[in-house]
Amino acid sequence: MEITVELLQEMISNKQIKRLREIFDDFNIVDLAELVQELSLQDLLFLFKILRNEITGILFSYFDSEHQETLIESFASHEIQDILDNLFSDDIAEFIEEMPANLVKKVLISATAEQRKEINLLLSYPENTAGSIMSTDFVELKKGDTIAQAIKKIKSQGKIAETINDCYVVDGERRLVGLVALKSILFQEADDLIDEYMEMDFVAVKTHDDQELVAQQMQHYDLLVIPVINEAQRFIGIITVDDIMDVLEEEVTEDIHKMAAIRPIEDSYLQASVMGMVKSRVFWLLILMISSTLAEHILAGYEEALATIPALAAFIPMIMGTAGNAGSQSSVMVIREISLKEISIKDIWKVIKIETHTSLLLGIVLFGVSILRIMILPPSVGLDIALVVSLSLIVSVLFSNVFGALLPLLAVVLKQDPAAMAGPLLTSLVDAFALIIYFTLCIGLLGIAI
Amino acid sequence: MEITVELLQEMISNKQIKRLREIFDDFNIVDLAELVQELSLQDLLFLFKILRNEITGILFSYFDSEHQETLIESFASHEIQDILDNLFSDDIAEFIEEMPANLVKKVLISATAEQRKEINLLLSYPENTAGSIMSTDFVELKKGDTIAQAIKKIKSQGKIAETINDCYVVDGERRLVGLVALKSILFQEADDLIDEYMEMDFVAVKTHDDQELVAQQMQHYDLLVIPVINEAQRFIGIITVDDIMDVLEEEVTEDIHKMAAIRPIEDSYLQASVMGMVKSRVFWLLILMISSTLAEHILAGYEEALATIPALAAFIPMIMGTAGNAGSQSSVMVIREISLKEISIKDIWKVIKIETHTSLLLGIVLFGVSILRIMILPPSVGLDIALVVSLSLIVSVLFSNVFGALLPLLAVVLKQDPAAMAGPLLTSLVDAFALIIYFTLCIGLLGIAI
Repeated sequence: MEITVELLQEMISNKQIKRLREIFDDFNIVDLAELVQELSLQDLLFLFKILRNEITGILFSYFDSEHQETLIESFASHEIQDILDNLFSDDIAEFIEEMPANLVKKVLISATAEQRKEINLLLSYPENTAGSIMSTDFVELKKGDTIAQAIKKIKSQGKIAETINDCYVVDGERRLVGLVALKSILFQEADDLIDEYMEMDFVAVKTHDDQELVAQQMQHYDLLVIPVINEAQRFIGIITVDDIMDVLEEEVTEDIHKMAAIRPIEDSYLQASVMGMVKSRVFWLLILMISSTLAEHILAGYEEALATIPALAAFIPMIMGTAGNAGSQSSVMVIREISLKEISIKDIWKVIKIETHTSLLLGIVLFGVSILRIMILPPSVGLDIALVVSLSLIVSVLFSNVFGALLPLLAVVLKQDPAAMAGPLLTSLVDAFALIIYFTLCIGLLGIAI
Repeated sequence: MEITVELLQEMISNKQIKRLREIFDDFNIVDLAELVQELSLQDLLFLFKILRNEITGILFSYFDSEHQETLIESFASHEIQDILDNLFSDDIAEFIEEMPANLVKKVLISATAEQRKEINLLLSYPENTAGSIMSTDFVELKKGDTIAQAIKKIKSQGKIAETINDCYVVDGERRLVGLVALKSILFQEADDLIDEYMEMDFVAVKTHDDQELVAQQMQHYDLLVIPVINEAQRFIGIITVDDIMDVLEEEVTEDIHKMAAIRPIEDSYLQASVMGMVKSRVFWLLILMISSTLAEHILAGYEEALATIPALAAFIPMIMGTAGNAGSQSSVMVIREISLKEISIKDIWKVIKIETHTSLLLGIVLFGVSILRIMILPPSVGLDIALVVSLSLIVSVLFSNVFGALLPLLAVVLKQDPAAMAGPLLTSLVDAFALIIYFTLCIGLLGIAI
């Protein structure tokens, strides 16, 4: 049986409560959450009344923020409480962060004292820190617990915990001292101490650490869950890898945008306002436009050379374009390796060597093809010009490749973001240098008087 | 105490076996793996002799492929067997895939019959498929098992399983029928059937599914583990999210490279050969160089206009550059949204609307700034030329933005890779059109006779 919106609508209007409950027990809840959002508010509220709180909690967590707001607006206080009861704390923090102030207030008023404390804790951390994305639903054991005590705690806390694979061990002052894998204690003697099975070489992050660092740590150490501690070393939360995947996605989008000279934009493409869109793009477009004055000046300086041999103008786009493409190839490769932590400033000589060798080989190929092309395809010019044009290609590609690769490394040294600095700056500089190389070679080798 | 390579070397040369064992039990194994790779082969072999097999297995899995090869070369048959015994099957497949044929043969000869079967199974799937990255270390239960039977199986299989959070339930023909969360059965009556606690709405992937699809499914459904089934629906493996994070990283690198006109490269930047580097870059550089013939032709066609008002040439880099930057902004944004599945071809009208509105607003800003700049900064020209140049900016930015956003959507319709098609093609086309727009407006509005 395939579940469609129409089928759900029909069953709701026929009040087929039992069948609806079965469907939400049997079918995939993520898929159902997508369908359910297409229902009318009235149908949605009916569904939320008849389904188990556990199910409605999960549905709610998968809704987009628009639907979450509408529901909170429509809900009575006890209904909000039921939702809060059935959400993991990181999901609560996530939906509240997106919500307008009046609705946040409504949620906080409806919450129990315990819930309110938890929400306020999570909301108190700045955006994009470990604290703001952590969950407070974990299993906590105490140093000196016996296996029997530990299993009892796991039994009671495990139902609401995000994971029970690993349980966290704290000392008398709630400082995190180790972790215990469930599978290592599950089948041991009941009166053994958990301390014997505790791993103390765990990796943890601090509440104010940037979420990007959390992602890096989890990836480096292949972790599914990472504990979060505060300044006083106290254990206060965990972050699971599924939430980190969203973080990584955001960071990658930001990096890709930066390389294309786009400044960070809050919303996704289809949701963004025209104003937001313009803001994210206009800054670099203006900078780049104004910096192209440089190329203009250089061109103006060679007006006489152009007047002597007008055919030279025709090759400007090719030289500038090829140099620009070569530079963006090497800079993008290096930027990506930097963000993967595969290259650092100590590799600078290796990078220069790689780019020089690559450029020389590339240059030879481009030189050959360029001469052939200039001789075969119009506009037809003499062999002397073809040689000079193609030679300029070699030199400017060599320059662009080395420069493109070094600029991101320079950014790292200056503690700037390589993607934001190297991407847009590169174009203007490479354009300018390619023109200088081209005209210098033309004047020198073709014997133009200026 | 901080562990350094020097400290390890000293302890090895003093044969402080007990202290070394303690260090490898107490400190983080991922960090230690990094240090240990800086030791001499002799020291490394000594370490592998004295440490527990469990520890050496994990160390080995974190080594780079060079060190893994050296060790396999040096190991005796029983040492290879110990390593294989202590690796998860996906780690085995990963290191064998990287290894030269003679060493693969050595590993296969040293392996037990059971190990050999497993390795051959994993090696039989094409690269980048779910089968090639899955692990065969999981807990498998049978439909109709009682809780007591299940717990017993978890106890025996759990030690070598990658996760025991979820256990997989198969029927008499080993077809996957559901999964059981450990926390849902752990504290139930011993003679209940697991069927009662089984979730049947699980998501699974097929062995031949592309790893990118696996990553998407796991992200969409927020999964930490996903089961893998073959064509006959039989359950044969699991994929854990930490392996999928590596897949995502690779895919993102490939996408970023494609947008910068770089073809896929096997090795990482520092490891790649000069030949490999040239291969990945030369294709698009040549295509783009040759396609710039288009811009040359266009420029050649306007030689007379340039002869009439030579100052016009000076603005060519600015117009082409700004149009190119604008086009790459819109295309990169759309390409990223397509790869995040946030935009599809059905959004085409929305995209056109967004780009038109954004461009007009951007155009107005650019127009104003451009006029000011041309009037203030040299080379000085008349207001008429400033107006025409700035007007060309508006028109060519509008064109580039819309065109840049539509090209990736067109690629999707043509079942081509948006990043590979849109990125490099865009530049040449935008250059050509920007020139045509510029000269058409110049000739029309400045009354140049051609």
